[in-house]
Amino acid sequence: MLSRVNSKLLHTVRRWYSSSRPTIFGLSSGSGKCGVAVVRVSGDACRDVMKIKTQSVTLPEPRKAVLRRIFHSKTTEMIDKGLVLWFPGPNSFTGEDSVEFHVHGGVAVVSAMYDSLGSIDGVRLAEPGEFTKRAFYAGKMDLTEVEGLADLIEAETEAQRKQAMLQANGELSKVYNELRNRLLRCIANIEAYIDFAEDQDVGDDVFESVKTDVASIIVDVKAHLNDQRRGERLRSGVRTVIIGAPNVGKSSFVNLLSNRKVSIVTNVAGTTRDIIESHHDIGGYPVILADTAGLRKETSDIIEHEGITRAKDYLTEADFIVLIVDAGNLQSYLKSSKKQFDDYLDHYVTSLGFKENIIRDFNCMIIINKVDLLSEEFRNAIDRTKNLSMLSCQTGEGLQNVLEKITENLKHLCGNPCRESPNISQQRYRHHLKACIQYLEKYYAYLSHGPNPDLAIATQYLRNAVRCIGMITGNVDTEEILDVIFRTFCIGK
Amino acid sequence: MLSRVNSKLLHTVRRWYSSSRPTIFGLSSGSGKCGVAVVRVSGDACRDVMKIKTQSVTLPEPRKAVLRRIFHSKTTEMIDKGLVLWFPGPNSFTGEDSVEFHVHGGVAVVSAMYDSLGSIDGVRLAEPGEFTKRAFYAGKMDLTEVEGLADLIEAETEAQRKQAMLQANGELSKVYNELRNRLLRCIANIEAYIDFAEDQDVGDDVFESVKTDVASIIVDVKAHLNDQRRGERLRSGVRTVIIGAPNVGKSSFVNLLSNRKVSIVTNVAGTTRDIIESHHDIGGYPVILADTAGLRKETSDIIEHEGITRAKDYLTEADFIVLIVDAGNLQSYLKSSKKQFDDYLDHYVTSLGFKENIIRDFNCMIIINKVDLLSEEFRNAIDRTKNLSMLSCQTGEGLQNVLEKITENLKHLCGNPCRESPNISQQRYRHHLKACIQYLEKYYAYLSHGPNPDLAIATQYLRNAVRCIGMITGNVDTEEILDVIFRTFCIGK
Repeated sequence: MLSRVNSKLLHTVRRWYSSSRPTIFGLSSGSGKCGVAVVRVSGDACRDVMKIKTQSVTLPEPRKAVLRRIFHSKTTEMIDKGLVLWFPGPNSFTGEDSVEFHVHGGVAVVSAMYDSLGSIDGVRLAEPGEFTKRAFYAGKMDLTEVEGLADLIEAETEAQRKQAMLQANGELSKVYNELRNRLLRCIANIEAYIDFAEDQDVGDDVFESVKTDVASIIVDVKAHLNDQRRGERLRSGVRTVIIGAPNVGKSSFVNLLSNRKVSIVTNVAGTTRDIIESHHDIGGYPVILADTAGLRKETSDIIEHEGITRAKDYLTEADFIVLIVDAGNLQSYLKSSKKQFDDYLDHYVTSLGFKENIIRDFNCMIIINKVDLLSEEFRNAIDRTKNLSMLSCQTGEGLQNVLEKITENLKHLCGNPCRESPNISQQRYRHHLKACIQYLEKYYAYLSHGPNPDLAIATQYLRNAVRCIGMITGNVDTEEILDVIFRTFCIGK
Repeated sequence: MLSRVNSKLLHTVRRWYSSSRPTIFGLSSGSGKCGVAVVRVSGDACRDVMKIKTQSVTLPEPRKAVLRRIFHSKTTEMIDKGLVLWFPGPNSFTGEDSVEFHVHGGVAVVSAMYDSLGSIDGVRLAEPGEFTKRAFYAGKMDLTEVEGLADLIEAETEAQRKQAMLQANGELSKVYNELRNRLLRCIANIEAYIDFAEDQDVGDDVFESVKTDVASIIVDVKAHLNDQRRGERLRSGVRTVIIGAPNVGKSSFVNLLSNRKVSIVTNVAGTTRDIIESHHDIGGYPVILADTAGLRKETSDIIEHEGITRAKDYLTEADFIVLIVDAGNLQSYLKSSKKQFDDYLDHYVTSLGFKENIIRDFNCMIIINKVDLLSEEFRNAIDRTKNLSMLSCQTGEGLQNVLEKITENLKHLCGNPCRESPNISQQRYRHHLKACIQYLEKYYAYLSHGPNPDLAIATQYLRNAVRCIGMITGNVDTEEILDVIFRTFCIGK
């Protein structure tokens, strides 16, 4: 819900928008042959639409599903018999009078409904998203809720659904509205200080407390920004890159997960050279898995060399790395060198051409593949406290454990939308939040700088900060600040 | 609606069926990303399902759309917020307690709903058509209505929709129920005659009047059968074949109708050799258009010869023939021979290798193509009272008129479902109706034959005739005849 601050403004906007807009209709349910198709109508003409389509002068009881014969508005022939629901505004999705016709889901039925509705005066087919746009203008949802709704419909996995559903239901709005209200209070206080400091009891302490408030807002927004992009990752999929030496089984692993042949697998080292992306739902989290060329320091093959370069470039943008270790190579190393598991990892990572320790420095999980080749003695040499899992792509041994381990990592990377405060789900929000902080810091710096700063100029920084938050939620008008002042100080008449 | 005759039987069937069946759920609306997905639940467990899914002990008012948070039954996490509708039986589609959840139409949302509903005891995913099957068992619809519903969903054109919608709403049921009731009255009368002729006032006149009734039923069923397959044609599409000499523009015509290149067009005679089918909606009627090889008596090309044979074979099964005439050839003929338009048609049809007059003997329409080549003088020579139209595939001249003329023909071939008594829409009905007539004729013949026929044997023919009608509507049980006797003669205790 929008804060009440805006009710007046929205009322004006709504009135203006309402006077100029036609009644719209569209198929709200999915297409294709099916039991039921929901055709939604919204706008002032709905009462007429109902009467024309049901050939009845009385409207049914609001929100009650009644079985009606549904007629063509032009030919007056019967189109279908189905449930009709009447939602008088403002208690409807769009806030306008609305009707739902539940007809049978066939091409000709829906087509007859479209033809019929489109031929009523002042009624036209809705544009994409127009119902939701009207809900927004009616103050039923703000922009984050609108975007949450879009994400909910797009959600492919369980965790994506949770995050989107919470956002659609206003969890993120709450965060931004609270933030916005805190900023509006600061502005109101400063305005009061400017106007009434001399003849009323608004003292210098107000000015100081605002300074403290702004500082604390900066801290909170920074904390909100410092979420390791968990929400964005969840929304658009965790970019996961599979790396390892040639022939350790990277492509076999991708194919095992996909249960189909995504990448070509041969026992020739360097089979994969392009980066091959595939989409997966692992434990409810969306994963974009990138199979890459096997890494080695030297290769005479130009194409393989290019593949290695691309793999390393991709790595820098990945959210999550899965490092595949060959159990056979590991065993030989341990046997011959008498060294420890950790030494092998260092040796292995170096052999791939990395200078830094990718295992330590990135979100990285190790999979020891071909574990069927590993003898009992060397299995025990593996440090199981590490972020690792053992697998045989050939026999499928350990797959369950691998999936659980990956899920654990994904949980850490994406967070649990149901159990923590809402994360930033879009780059757009991050952008405006950063701009907001910049204005707040400017405000702070301006006031802290010289003697007798111009408070009106300083306040403008706060206004701009509020505007940044308004850009996120769709509340953008400076007039509204007057409203807060009137409300909190009772100055208006 | 099923006739009341069966109410008792159905009650028993329903009780038996109800006791053994689980509660079912399924997505009733179309798939794909969309605003709303309707998940329907039907069965005894619906009250519990409602309570678990909305986490509320009170059920909403019946048939009223209420906005509720919808929870997962296992994890108790919120899945979505949406409209919930409660339809207590028997006033629901299936006749059972039913619930509709209107959630957002996304993959993850619907998947969470499925997962959640499927984990409630005694609730499982519905089989295809299971909701309608339950509606049938509950006596909400008979088989013709069920089949009408299926056709309604499949309908691609306006006329198909009309026929299916009327059938789904019981128009065909009425015909068969009336027929069935007439037959049941005959049987009841005969039974009464057998049992009570001696000691009550059921006289020989009853026996004679039944004979008359049966004769009139035979006439009526035959009239119903004699519908030129209009309903079946409309249901499955009018098989229309385009014929003509090579290079008269058959493929150009198909492409013009399709607004795309269905058949390859060149100015080489014999370009089309396979039969190329395409589907069209012309004036609301479904048309399966078959482009064929150009016909000529002699060809040295083996493939072309095979094409001609196939075209002629196809012709024998076609519902409608469109004969394309080349205006240029027509003009040359009229010029040189000084003969009439009709003579050219005879000459042309013969040149295509037909012995009979296909224009007279089949449903055939003539299109005079390349009309842009025709001079004013020869345009006037054409007999416009015939079933013909003039066209230029090159310029598009006359296309509107061609479409109107074809629509007229289609109307004649398919009938107007809204303006005439319902036609037989399926081969299945025709089959059972023919079998019904056979039994009725056997009855009639048996009685007319020798002296003192065994009335019990004769009545069995009538029972079989009733059973044939029952096969159409889904009323098949001989017990029911007792019911009629009890009802019409008040013999029971």
